[in-house]
Amino acid sequence: MINRDEALRRDAADTLAPLRDQFALPEGVIYLDGNSLGPLPRATPDRLAAVIRGEWGKDLIGSWNSAGWIDLPADVGDQIAPLVGAGAGELIAADSTSVNLFKVLAAALRIVAEDEPGRVEIVSERDNFPTDLYIVQGLSDLLGGRYTLRLVDSADEIPAALGANTALLLLTHVNYRSGAMHDMATLSAAAHEAGALTIWDLAHSAGAVPVALNDDGADFAIGCGYKYLNGGPGAPAFLWVAPRHVGRFRQPLSGWMGHARPFDFVPDYEPGEGVSRYLCGTPAILAMSALECGVETLLAAEPYGGMAALRAKSQALTDFFIECVEARCAGKGLQLVTPRDPARRGSQVSFAFDDAWPLCQALIARGVIGDFRAPDILRFGFAPLYIRFVDVWDAAEVLGTVLDTGEWLEARFVERNAVT
Amino acid sequence: MINRDEALRRDAADTLAPLRDQFALPEGVIYLDGNSLGPLPRATPDRLAAVIRGEWGKDLIGSWNSAGWIDLPADVGDQIAPLVGAGAGELIAADSTSVNLFKVLAAALRIVAEDEPGRVEIVSERDNFPTDLYIVQGLSDLLGGRYTLRLVDSADEIPAALGANTALLLLTHVNYRSGAMHDMATLSAAAHEAGALTIWDLAHSAGAVPVALNDDGADFAIGCGYKYLNGGPGAPAFLWVAPRHVGRFRQPLSGWMGHARPFDFVPDYEPGEGVSRYLCGTPAILAMSALECGVETLLAAEPYGGMAALRAKSQALTDFFIECVEARCAGKGLQLVTPRDPARRGSQVSFAFDDAWPLCQALIARGVIGDFRAPDILRFGFAPLYIRFVDVWDAAEVLGTVLDTGEWLEARFVERNAVT
Repeated sequence: MINRDEALRRDAADTLAPLRDQFALPEGVIYLDGNSLGPLPRATPDRLAAVIRGEWGKDLIGSWNSAGWIDLPADVGDQIAPLVGAGAGELIAADSTSVNLFKVLAAALRIVAEDEPGRVEIVSERDNFPTDLYIVQGLSDLLGGRYTLRLVDSADEIPAALGANTALLLLTHVNYRSGAMHDMATLSAAAHEAGALTIWDLAHSAGAVPVALNDDGADFAIGCGYKYLNGGPGAPAFLWVAPRHVGRFRQPLSGWMGHARPFDFVPDYEPGEGVSRYLCGTPAILAMSALECGVETLLAAEPYGGMAALRAKSQALTDFFIECVEARCAGKGLQLVTPRDPARRGSQVSFAFDDAWPLCQALIARGVIGDFRAPDILRFGFAPLYIRFVDVWDAAEVLGTVLDTGEWLEARFVERNAVT
Repeated sequence: MINRDEALRRDAADTLAPLRDQFALPEGVIYLDGNSLGPLPRATPDRLAAVIRGEWGKDLIGSWNSAGWIDLPADVGDQIAPLVGAGAGELIAADSTSVNLFKVLAAALRIVAEDEPGRVEIVSERDNFPTDLYIVQGLSDLLGGRYTLRLVDSADEIPAALGANTALLLLTHVNYRSGAMHDMATLSAAAHEAGALTIWDLAHSAGAVPVALNDDGADFAIGCGYKYLNGGPGAPAFLWVAPRHVGRFRQPLSGWMGHARPFDFVPDYEPGEGVSRYLCGTPAILAMSALECGVETLLAAEPYGGMAALRAKSQALTDFFIECVEARCAGKGLQLVTPRDPARRGSQVSFAFDDAWPLCQALIARGVIGDFRAPDILRFGFAPLYIRFVDVWDAAEVLGTVLDTGEWLEARFVERNAVT
């Protein structure tokens, strides 16, 4: 039987519960949007103040060395690496997810072009996060329209879409709308079987579900710092290249930080060792320091079982939410779009609803923050670091109340707000 | 006659002197490296704390709208615009200088390729800041080696290098080593006369010297946020496109923030209006907020005469430094490499010296922070917002003392430090 006491009992039994104290969550809010913007870690304000007042303010330019600023992209990368199954020295924090995708996309396509120039299709999903498709379009356009996107409408169609023309399989591991998670090992193997390479966008995976880039045979990966990694709004993103590919090509955003000896100031580019060649301009130190604090909130889970324990809790939270909503809101028009099998979803639950946008606004007005994704998706993220079972129960209750009262109808004709 | 009292008299007469109070400069330091990393504005720590604790911590995802995060790239761009002679809505803050160069380079070359495909040379200086050359190499390599860098060894050779093969003239307005400043109007006209377009890197100009992008006929420009704009280590950079070109081509880093309607989440890219199409990924809000504080330190000079008054002071400071050093350090082996004519230099003074690196280290040990640029350049920046004439005098005195005592010889055999 499910009720609020049951939720409280589960929280009392939750060994990960102390990890919530790492966050400064506002009162009166159930924050189910950490998959869009992770909340503020308690450690971040003081860390940033120290970086700003001490490292920048007092030590000025000397901090590039004395405070280790120059190493931050590699150091933060090494912190992220174990969360996604990457080895030390294989991953960097830098730039935005979109910019990083451009780098690995160009590198991957160059490898394919050298080996098998006839491969010109990039297989992806029509429902992939749009920026990933836009970056492919931008690069292909730059290359005279050489590459074509082959978009499938459902994950089941992916294997059949891979063939002798396929250069790359580009997928977001966990879909931003539905929350459906791909099987990285199986699809990577299918791509390789077809002679193609893979790029995995881990925006909704890193810090949310265990990822095994090396073990699952991925070729390239990128990911986001401001969602489950809690790095702050617009935090630097990350980039990983399989060791077997990393020395093969110099990516085209060949700025000075990717040079083998940037401070020699020579006029000819020479790519740095390993993944360092995927750096471009001067690293954003303030943003990178905030990202470091965010990543540390996940590393703090190590003594409690790490990503495996977080995954188990995430599955329990999302199972519980589906159960609560289907019990409380039956017959109200919500349709589950997230896979019911917890092994096939990330850390979010989405429902389709005809008027999802006003319903989302009405929930926010009652302190339950999820988000809306056009055209009709109501999306709830359950970051296992800080979401409690009682939050799940309460959110489902509020959702039920809002649907019962019809108060969401009031928001229906208000103009759509850009971001939320 | 020059002496310390004369320096103090000049400071007393300096109407811009109050602007120094905007900065939290450490005691006992003469900071002549604001051309590498601008110092901390006093306003920045509190602003960042408010963004972090209030906007991010309390309002969470809602701040994309309620705090105007989504508009920051355009808003900060509009603040920078008047400093460089750009109009409202023509300039954005985003990404790094290197990434922004890639965007405008690709766009400019595409325009040229469509109009006159035979033009395949990019004229620049061998002594340009290396990342600019590296980005050209990276893009050209991506395009199958289509474009060639034609590097001149001296600015005088530029006009003769422009011709029927020239696609672009790519110059850094103020040279990072010598401090020599190009005549933007004359060289832009020469490039246009030859049928080429221009890209101007304003890294050492923005906030240091008046720039007139529109009036001088520039086509594209990029610049740095962490030097004279005081935006903090690795601050977002900026990008400007002349209105006559902006709608012509969609640049290849076509991420979602450059889309006409990013929150419609449609699978096909459609470039946004104007310069917004040069945005790529999610903006770095913490870093962008710090940049805003930095830019405001320059806008605060408006009531005092703005960039024209800052330029006059900068010329007086650099003139005075040359005068002081040549009087105090005569016969010690320092060779002025910055143009003696103040109209032909930026806001820095550089000397060549055989052992420039150990000399730089010895100066830093005595609190005079300049920097070293390989192989033999000692570089001093004079940001007129906060450098005083007495700092100039004292720095020249310390330089003389260090050369007299020979204490710099002790640093001679220490291994070179990466960044400083």
